[in-house]
Amino acid sequence: MNEQGSPQAGTNLDPWYHHYAERAGGLRASEVRALFAVASRPEVVSLAGGMPFVSALPQELVINAMERVMVEQGAVALQYGSGQGVPALREQILEVMALEGIRAHADDVVVTTGSQHALELVSKLFLDPGDVVISEGPSYVTAMVIFKSYQAEIDHVPMDENGLIPEALREHIASLKAAGKRIKFLYTIPSFHNPAGVTLSWERRLEILQIARENDILVLEDNPYGLLYFDQPAPDAMRSVEQDGVVYLGTFSKTLAPGFRVGWALAPHAIREKLVLANEAAVLSPSSFSQLVISEYLSSADWKGQINTFRGVYHERKNALLGALDEYLPELGWTNPNGGFYVWLTLPERLDSKAMLPRAVTELVAYTPGTAFFADGDGHQNMRLSFCYPTPENIRVGIRRLATVIRAELDLLDTFAGTGSLRAAPSGRQFGAPPPNLS
Amino acid sequence: MNEQGSPQAGTNLDPWYHHYAERAGGLRASEVRALFAVASRPEVVSLAGGMPFVSALPQELVINAMERVMVEQGAVALQYGSGQGVPALREQILEVMALEGIRAHADDVVVTTGSQHALELVSKLFLDPGDVVISEGPSYVTAMVIFKSYQAEIDHVPMDENGLIPEALREHIASLKAAGKRIKFLYTIPSFHNPAGVTLSWERRLEILQIARENDILVLEDNPYGLLYFDQPAPDAMRSVEQDGVVYLGTFSKTLAPGFRVGWALAPHAIREKLVLANEAAVLSPSSFSQLVISEYLSSADWKGQINTFRGVYHERKNALLGALDEYLPELGWTNPNGGFYVWLTLPERLDSKAMLPRAVTELVAYTPGTAFFADGDGHQNMRLSFCYPTPENIRVGIRRLATVIRAELDLLDTFAGTGSLRAAPSGRQFGAPPPNLS
Repeated sequence: MNEQGSPQAGTNLDPWYHHYAERAGGLRASEVRALFAVASRPEVVSLAGGMPFVSALPQELVINAMERVMVEQGAVALQYGSGQGVPALREQILEVMALEGIRAHADDVVVTTGSQHALELVSKLFLDPGDVVISEGPSYVTAMVIFKSYQAEIDHVPMDENGLIPEALREHIASLKAAGKRIKFLYTIPSFHNPAGVTLSWERRLEILQIARENDILVLEDNPYGLLYFDQPAPDAMRSVEQDGVVYLGTFSKTLAPGFRVGWALAPHAIREKLVLANEAAVLSPSSFSQLVISEYLSSADWKGQINTFRGVYHERKNALLGALDEYLPELGWTNPNGGFYVWLTLPERLDSKAMLPRAVTELVAYTPGTAFFADGDGHQNMRLSFCYPTPENIRVGIRRLATVIRAELDLLDTFAGTGSLRAAPSGRQFGAPPPNLS
Repeated sequence: MNEQGSPQAGTNLDPWYHHYAERAGGLRASEVRALFAVASRPEVVSLAGGMPFVSALPQELVINAMERVMVEQGAVALQYGSGQGVPALREQILEVMALEGIRAHADDVVVTTGSQHALELVSKLFLDPGDVVISEGPSYVTAMVIFKSYQAEIDHVPMDENGLIPEALREHIASLKAAGKRIKFLYTIPSFHNPAGVTLSWERRLEILQIARENDILVLEDNPYGLLYFDQPAPDAMRSVEQDGVVYLGTFSKTLAPGFRVGWALAPHAIREKLVLANEAAVLSPSSFSQLVISEYLSSADWKGQINTFRGVYHERKNALLGALDEYLPELGWTNPNGGFYVWLTLPERLDSKAMLPRAVTELVAYTPGTAFFADGDGHQNMRLSFCYPTPENIRVGIRRLATVIRAELDLLDTFAGTGSLRAAPSGRQFGAPPPNLS
């Protein structure tokens, strides 16, 4: 066996153990992974996953689009396409982005296999080992998995109820630069953040763009949820005011359906050219069939009306979640999202969301522990609650079960207080204490 | 601007020029890229691209499969799926691979976004900068683009009419090891090679597996064309005799249609686990919709009969190509593939396929110059002729035009012989000389 490779995660039962690339050490099963398995049991109310409620999409709209594509453009749909994506779809993507104030040219759009793959391609283009990606803390799990897979370090900047805190960003950049770190980009989800549920205010968008400009830092604006607002739209996208310094990522996974795996990047021209090459290397071309079906759907169906339908579904579910929290766990703190899929809940300091999860699953409710959303082990006191997929009734059932779990956990801690047999509370802070701390 | 980055391909007009990762320097537009643009002009007979002739697939088979999927499993088709792929499809993939002697477990199959993405994922898992990938010379263009994008070096081992030459492989491994190189895998297309059109004999398959075993080298067996044989099947896959040392790549792009972007990897268990994680990081899950449509097609349509239809189409076209070469360019040498899409043509030494291409396009025929298939600039005397897409009639027209171009080129060389104004012939070798030299 070749002994030149570096040790990696895994066991020596793998005969290729010493052959993997160094970066393969960063690929580990995420906490969300195990949860997906749990959440698939029908008796569990899962507030864990981020699956859109695709049943709110009338299937005949999709079937009609497919049939028209096959009849009118079958040979194109079945064939390889361009590495940049179908031109007609790229034009339609401009209309989608215009709803959030973005003006762009279709030539600067690259269609990808979900916006996840755009994240992967941007990371492959920019990240050398040891580079730093700044992101909100908490941040999107599978973005961090990608950054780590390219051996980058993740620096979390705290948020409050108005999103990323500009002053904290300035401080982090200064420390990182002082430490000689190369900051490659700021990864941000400004609207209806995953997992925090908060939205970056307009003033802060401008200020953060200014900070990025001053420090020569590229902004990677990930916006899967922007159009799924409840009471009022999110502020316009950061890309609407800054073209040269922003790579913007969008997707049809939440406004239509994830099963097609179609997303996109809108990038400054030189970056876009490299993204197309990276896309061709990775998949030759994104699925022609998926792209043409979506293009046909956008041409012929009332897609804006369908987005309104989704907004209504998710708004109702968010209200169900917050109503149930008010009723069953009024002592806790949580964010109140004006769109998207997620609420970020803060537990009493004595509780550990990760340690509590198995007991929650025993009570037939699942959530994502806050630790999944931090690269540095933070988040024990938090959890993400997803309201996108379960019905309002099931959301209430789930929160009632969660309250039972939390109370039992606290009772247990009280019973064993001082015996040292359970993790002691680190301080006297109790229910009803601070506003949700997202840092 | 951050000056810490290393210089990359591109111009300083790109404000992010110094920010790219080192590996981004390996991403360059391939020669095939420009050819795709040329080939799309309808007046050009393109013998350049590798597009399957999807019009030989009855569209109602696909439409029926889609409709059944949407009616019976619509909510699943539109949703995210598993990072490993749909279990039912993975079972069916076993039936496909069984046709080439492979016995495996569905748990060791990972569905990918075309087999291209399996190549990308395997490369991401294994390749550190400076690692060596051994491949046939010539080899598949976009595999080499991926290897280079992970900063690996490519070492070409020559072929003859029975494929990769084992003795040459032994010598290359010895030299590479003597030079202290880390060899990560042997990338090979044993059946109906792209671009060479040759097939690795059974005896050599066994011998090469033995060499790989002795030298602790993983074999990456890429088999997109194996089922598209003409007179007789290719020998069984290398994976049929060696499980632990082979990652096998398959695809539905050639036996069904590339527009769905569905391929797969069959890998030793520990590697498979890492491939799933890498797949999830890259795209979350491959398209549920595409996978279910293919699964339904495999369940309900006569897919083996359809493969026979494709075989007939491509066999007829190969015969048209070889017949036209016999008639119009009998002095040249070429390979006679027993399957797949490609013939490898050897020009007189005096000619340069890359330099000649613009004149060929002027005469309305396109091919891929041999240089595209070598990492080291070799291949000037060769070209790849694809018979997969144009009709037999157009193939004849294309070869007639190509003959005109070649003769005009030779006349020009004769006219200017000795004046030094054109590239002189390096030797006295002429038409009708050696058998096709693939090294």
